[in-house]
Amino acid sequence: MIRSFAFTTQGRLHTRDIDLFLMPTLLADTNLFLWVDFENPTPEEVQTILAGVFHFHPLSIEDCVTVSSSPKVEEYTPKEGDLFTPYLFMVIHAVDYKREDGKFATSELDFFLGKNFLVTYHQKPLRPVSVIEERCMKGAMQIARAPDRVAHSLLDMLVDGYKPALDELALEISDVEEKVLQHPDRQTFNHILQLKKKVLVLRQIISPQCEVLARFGAGEFKLIRPQLVPYFRDVYDSLRRINEMAQSYTDSLTGILQIYLNMSSNQTGEVVKLLTMITVITTPLMMIGTWYGMNFHDMPELSWRYGYLVAGIITVISTTLTYLYFKMKKWF
Amino acid sequence: MIRSFAFTTQGRLHTRDIDLFLMPTLLADTNLFLWVDFENPTPEEVQTILAGVFHFHPLSIEDCVTVSSSPKVEEYTPKEGDLFTPYLFMVIHAVDYKREDGKFATSELDFFLGKNFLVTYHQKPLRPVSVIEERCMKGAMQIARAPDRVAHSLLDMLVDGYKPALDELALEISDVEEKVLQHPDRQTFNHILQLKKKVLVLRQIISPQCEVLARFGAGEFKLIRPQLVPYFRDVYDSLRRINEMAQSYTDSLTGILQIYLNMSSNQTGEVVKLLTMITVITTPLMMIGTWYGMNFHDMPELSWRYGYLVAGIITVISTTLTYLYFKMKKWF
Amino acid sequence: MIRSFAFTTQGRLHTRDIDLFLMPTLLADTNLFLWVDFENPTPEEVQTILAGVFHFHPLSIEDCVTVSSSPKVEEYTPKEGDLFTPYLFMVIHAVDYKREDGKFATSELDFFLGKNFLVTYHQKPLRPVSVIEERCMKGAMQIARAPDRVAHSLLDMLVDGYKPALDELALEISDVEEKVLQHPDRQTFNHILQLKKKVLVLRQIISPQCEVLARFGAGEFKLIRPQLVPYFRDVYDSLRRINEMAQSYTDSLTGILQIYLNMSSNQTGEVVKLLTMITVITTPLMMIGTWYGMNFHDMPELSWRYGYLVAGIITVISTTLTYLYFKMKKWF
Amino acid sequence: MIRSFAFTTQGRLHTRDIDLFLMPTLLADTNLFLWVDFENPTPEEVQTILAGVFHFHPLSIEDCVTVSSSPKVEEYTPKEGDLFTPYLFMVIHAVDYKREDGKFATSELDFFLGKNFLVTYHQKPLRPVSVIEERCMKGAMQIARAPDRVAHSLLDMLVDGYKPALDELALEISDVEEKVLQHPDRQTFNHILQLKKKVLVLRQIISPQCEVLARFGAGEFKLIRPQLVPYFRDVYDSLRRINEMAQSYTDSLTGILQIYLNMSSNQTGEVVKLLTMITVITTPLMMIGTWYGMNFHDMPELSWRYGYLVAGIITVISTTLTYLYFKMKKWF
Amino acid sequence: MIRSFAFTTQGRLHTRDIDLFLMPTLLADTNLFLWVDFENPTPEEVQTILAGVFHFHPLSIEDCVTVSSSPKVEEYTPKEGDLFTPYLFMVIHAVDYKREDGKFATSELDFFLGKNFLVTYHQKPLRPVSVIEERCMKGAMQIARAPDRVAHSLLDMLVDGYKPALDELALEISDVEEKVLQHPDRQTFNHILQLKKKVLVLRQIISPQCEVLARFGAGEFKLIRPQLVPYFRDVYDSLRRINEMAQSYTDSLTGILQIYLNMSSNQTGEVVKLLTMITVITTPLMMIGTWYGMNFHDMPELSWRYGYLVAGIITVISTTLTYLYFKMKKWF
Repeated sequence: MIRSFAFTTQGRLHTRDIDLFLMPTLLADTNLFLWVDFENPTPEEVQTILAGVFHFHPLSIEDCVTVSSSPKVEEYTPKEGDLFTPYLFMVIHAVDYKREDGKFATSELDFFLGKNFLVTYHQKPLRPVSVIEERCMKGAMQIARAPDRVAHSLLDMLVDGYKPALDELALEISDVEEKVLQHPDRQTFNHILQLKKKVLVLRQIISPQCEVLARFGAGEFKLIRPQLVPYFRDVYDSLRRINEMAQSYTDSLTGILQIYLNMSSNQTGEVVKLLTMITVITTPLMMIGTWYGMNFHDMPELSWRYGYLVAGIITVISTTLTYLYFKMKKWF
Repeated sequence: MIRSFAFTTQGRLHTRDIDLFLMPTLLADTNLFLWVDFENPTPEEVQTILAGVFHFHPLSIEDCVTVSSSPKVEEYTPKEGDLFTPYLFMVIHAVDYKREDGKFATSELDFFLGKNFLVTYHQKPLRPVSVIEERCMKGAMQIARAPDRVAHSLLDMLVDGYKPALDELALEISDVEEKVLQHPDRQTFNHILQLKKKVLVLRQIISPQCEVLARFGAGEFKLIRPQLVPYFRDVYDSLRRINEMAQSYTDSLTGILQIYLNMSSNQTGEVVKLLTMITVITTPLMMIGTWYGMNFHDMPELSWRYGYLVAGIITVISTTLTYLYFKMKKWF
Repeated sequence: MIRSFAFTTQGRLHTRDIDLFLMPTLLADTNLFLWVDFENPTPEEVQTILAGVFHFHPLSIEDCVTVSSSPKVEEYTPKEGDLFTPYLFMVIHAVDYKREDGKFATSELDFFLGKNFLVTYHQKPLRPVSVIEERCMKGAMQIARAPDRVAHSLLDMLVDGYKPALDELALEISDVEEKVLQHPDRQTFNHILQLKKKVLVLRQIISPQCEVLARFGAGEFKLIRPQLVPYFRDVYDSLRRINEMAQSYTDSLTGILQIYLNMSSNQTGEVVKLLTMITVITTPLMMIGTWYGMNFHDMPELSWRYGYLVAGIITVISTTLTYLYFKMKKWF
Repeated sequence: MIRSFAFTTQGRLHTRDIDLFLMPTLLADTNLFLWVDFENPTPEEVQTILAGVFHFHPLSIEDCVTVSSSPKVEEYTPKEGDLFTPYLFMVIHAVDYKREDGKFATSELDFFLGKNFLVTYHQKPLRPVSVIEERCMKGAMQIARAPDRVAHSLLDMLVDGYKPALDELALEISDVEEKVLQHPDRQTFNHILQLKKKVLVLRQIISPQCEVLARFGAGEFKLIRPQLVPYFRDVYDSLRRINEMAQSYTDSLTGILQIYLNMSSNQTGEVVKLLTMITVITTPLMMIGTWYGMNFHDMPELSWRYGYLVAGIITVISTTLTYLYFKMKKWF
Repeated sequence: MIRSFAFTTQGRLHTRDIDLFLMPTLLADTNLFLWVDFENPTPEEVQTILAGVFHFHPLSIEDCVTVSSSPKVEEYTPKEGDLFTPYLFMVIHAVDYKREDGKFATSELDFFLGKNFLVTYHQKPLRPVSVIEERCMKGAMQIARAPDRVAHSLLDMLVDGYKPALDELALEISDVEEKVLQHPDRQTFNHILQLKKKVLVLRQIISPQCEVLARFGAGEFKLIRPQLVPYFRDVYDSLRRINEMAQSYTDSLTGILQIYLNMSSNQTGEVVKLLTMITVITTPLMMIGTWYGMNFHDMPELSWRYGYLVAGIITVISTTLTYLYFKMKKWF
């Protein structure tokens, strides 16, 4: 599906759903700015417009069409014989995370940003795109004035979309932390490792996006007007903060893992303590009981009057002493 | 609440609590320097003065008003059509830590620093601000001469305010170290991990502040006069030292954790030793006792004259030997 | 074996299997581009052509002939007295991995890339080389136009050849992960370490190749025409992605190792629990049994009417209580 | 206490214990070089000379007077209105370590190095200073010719003074290593951690000094004449080597710690082995003994002629077999 | 001992064992190249030639004479008043390792490399030096033409001399790996740690040499003619590869250590398993045996007809069941 808009430099809508044959004319008009949005288009549509109307470099068209996990931004400057005007090509990813299925889904958004055009390309419907389109249609003239402003708004919303994923993850981490402190078992352990993996995946997604946005914030590209650079730096700053937060999640999880491992080794320690205590406390009784269970014909103690009583008393006293010993050593 | 002051370049107080309508006039007077301090102002106050009088860039006003955990400094140079004069916008954080509640609270302080004005903005009353205001009022002419000097004094006091938080933390760390060496238990372990987390949080606060101050110390900004740069470098140096100290706390805590883990594994080792010792020492008696408790009709030893005595002697001797064996092996 | 081709700048085949004496002539013709491919040649062939026809620098010829595990790229610019024209010398490696033998085999491919010639050198037949040769012969004029295009196609296919090796490895890793979760034993442990070693080896192979390709992607070499640089950057990008994937394998394996170690220490913990449980549960019976096995002449309980019954009841009750205690503590 | 010297550019002593009023005159004489050494001076002395005679920048005077743990070097170039001539201000630390008290004491040495003056400042008497003073007095004309030569000699001796501290530490480390290999106990463990801490402290002292000296070795300062730069580089080189040695100490201690932990876990393993061995070896006797201790009326074996003998033989054989089993498994 | 040679620029030997008084004359002759090799010389020889004939900078002479563990290269350019011509001073180390004594011995080789002279200095006879001398004498004119060629040949052989040391180490590592997999004991553990230390030492030797050679390979020095730079880069490349190999040894050893630690903890786990198994399997018999060993007068089971038989059957069945339980749990 293709949606296309032409705005005047005052941010007013000029035409929408532009006819293919009109595009080159509108594109040539410096008082207009053209936005073409591809959503899951057919290969022919792609070819006709990207190559036929805009004459983009074949490599960037190919990069746009193929799904890639690495964001990037490249500046294309026409050389002799090239038909295109200078443009930026950018690949960036939105992220989506649902606790139930526990996977980070990324959706790619590709930009071609020129002096007076913006081409966006995505497979699935993307909330930032539809929201910004609607705003522009409703007359958000601030935004609809120039392609770099629209690009900024899109990036801003896209980066905002990372936050719910992080919040979900934070919730899950605090859940697992609680579980570890209550009764740590093997499932908890696997859960921690799983979460670590997820945070790693998330950071592997965010960190290259960060690098790409940093270049915008540094004002590296001439196609972004200087007065918009601070706005792009703002987007970069919030993504960087998200990245740092994700980094701090890794640290939290490492801490939780350490707690788990310590508690599990403590548990074994406690079990061994119990075993030792029981063994030691019953030792006096077992020794006396076994000893006087012998069948020697001539064991004088057996026929002593208070033999049994004395044996009982000795048993009780030594058992009490071992018990007190452990009590003193704070074993329980 | 808004407090405002105008000082002459000799550091004398010219006017205070300046009327809103006078501000533009005073601002235009190059012989004066204007300091406006916002403490938890209403949105209208902010808008009227920051946008209306000073004409600051909307992005910096927004950054100022929103609470942010990342410090930053940005230089705004007017472009054609901009009404403001060049200024620095800076976000910096004071830190506060109380042992009872165990959390690091940060309070944000925002600066707008121009050639002849300084605007400070904070939500809560901040000690550095009130102290410096008082000093300026009392005629500390050295300070009140120029906005960069006031800014330096504010930053200096703010960085000084980090030290008590560090001292508190140092005390807590040495407490927990002592506890680990006396009787390490699970609470101690959790305490160590908690402290590690806190130090991490503190470092995450300090380290970006450091980066921001470094740029002042490097004399990067033209609005800071060269003769003041060494003073700013001094502030940076003390924050860097605080940062290094915080870093060394992490190392200490890692060491304490290792002691804890070793002592806890040593404890289990000791318990196992005790179990083994008791088992081995009682083994001779249990063997002989059990053996001669058998009811075979024809066990010659049972009817021997000294059978019981010999059994007793063998038991005592073997028990003593195992005891000596452990003694020799230094088990107790 | 030597295969040689001369293509026109339109990408048409001009001559193949060029006679040695013709080579210098063809080489001098700027309308032609010469591709000479050495596959396991004799030393004489090497000497005659590389030194005799192309006059390459002796060091680069030596580097080409010797097998080396480090890829490299060097630019040779003729100095006074040198007979060669400027050329790039490049060593790059294809990788091959078969699960059965479990080793990464690398095959070296050497390039000499000049303005109008390409010399490739390899010991074993290499798929990328034979495929590209065939394509050129069949009239893939796009490719056969210039030596840098052919070099790009070769590198592209060579880098593509890394993917199956990674996929094999990924399969093996998920296999071992499953084994760890089902029943971890010492073989699994050794397998994990073995895989870690393999991934390390793979990364040691890939990462220097990456560095070499990065220099192409950065447009560092004048012999690569600017319009081809984006293509080389593309090759570099895909190798970088492969490298990152290999890196993520190391992280996965570290996670699996942690699971293994935890499960193995959990197992010992479980065993100790079982020992303790059995010992504690049988303790009441053993104590009473041993005690009333004593042969004192005067043990009143023995002749009590319900003595045995009471002993039995006490045993059952205490055993049940210890059992319930463990039940409550969730030991089983 | 203040000691002051004026040397001619030939290195001959001109005056010593210079009168305060003469100083400005001597300072103005370009044929002389002035060395003023402060040892624990009164604040008035500091103020009179540093500010009154030399007119140093207030910040550097403050840095000089306050005790600081961070070395630094700063170049002060006079601006309009400043009375001082260009000078270098440097803070550097000597280190002292005695095994008995186990602490690294650092003593600060501050330099003000100008074209024809050197001011040194220290609280405690410092060996390098007194030695160099003596040498200069005794006519070591090579040194006494210029302030940068004296500064070099001072730094050289100061860096040399780090070596004994390192040697002490090396001795202690080899002591603790031996102890670990003989009989590792908890004290040894704590000692290792303590040493690690000390080495860390030492490295935290040395490493910033290194950075400061590196700047001298790089010839960054114009006040150091080019022909002296190699000498300063030499001082830097030896400090760097000391730093690397300290680094290698950390590695040694990590190794020793690993040995300790392994030996301690081995010990527990040995104890468990002993327990298991004793339990298993006594099992046959205990089983047979307990079984035939039963009081069933009709136990035919009890009345068999060779019943007891057979029981004995079975016991001996099974015990021997378990014994041999352990022997075979190399348990002892 | 001093050996000296003068070669013509065609690489022919002109004079050898040059008289001291002739040296300055030969040195002044630009058609000759002088090589002076010091092997364990007397201090007078050093002084007379290095200072008297060549007028080298005193610092470089001192560095040459003292034994140092850090390689370095420094460029000396004469300043006004200096008598020497520009030269490079270089310290580099050969390495020697014998398995029996298990230590890395390094021998220092110092170079003074000028436009038409090379001075080499070493304490012990060095194979590279004697080999290259011999080759030059035998008319290897390629080499004997210029000091940078000789220097390259020396460095090349010296770096080649690292390989046997590495091979020895590799052998030892694979030995210890095998031992760990067969029967790991404490000696093996200490051996692993020892090897780790050795590899560390080796890397500490190699890595600074690498840095020094890198500077040659980068063509940093004007005294090395451009056409020789690729040769030096080659030497650097092979040392870098050696360095990487040494690095990979550390990784191998870390892996071996992990195997050891895991096997040793597995062993304890196995021992505990055995203990538990024996205890649990004997429990039914011990319980029944102890219970019916009681002497209550009225224990009806004792006089039942099949009492003993039933007890026996119950014992056998429960023992079998526990046995099967462990069998099912794959304990043996």
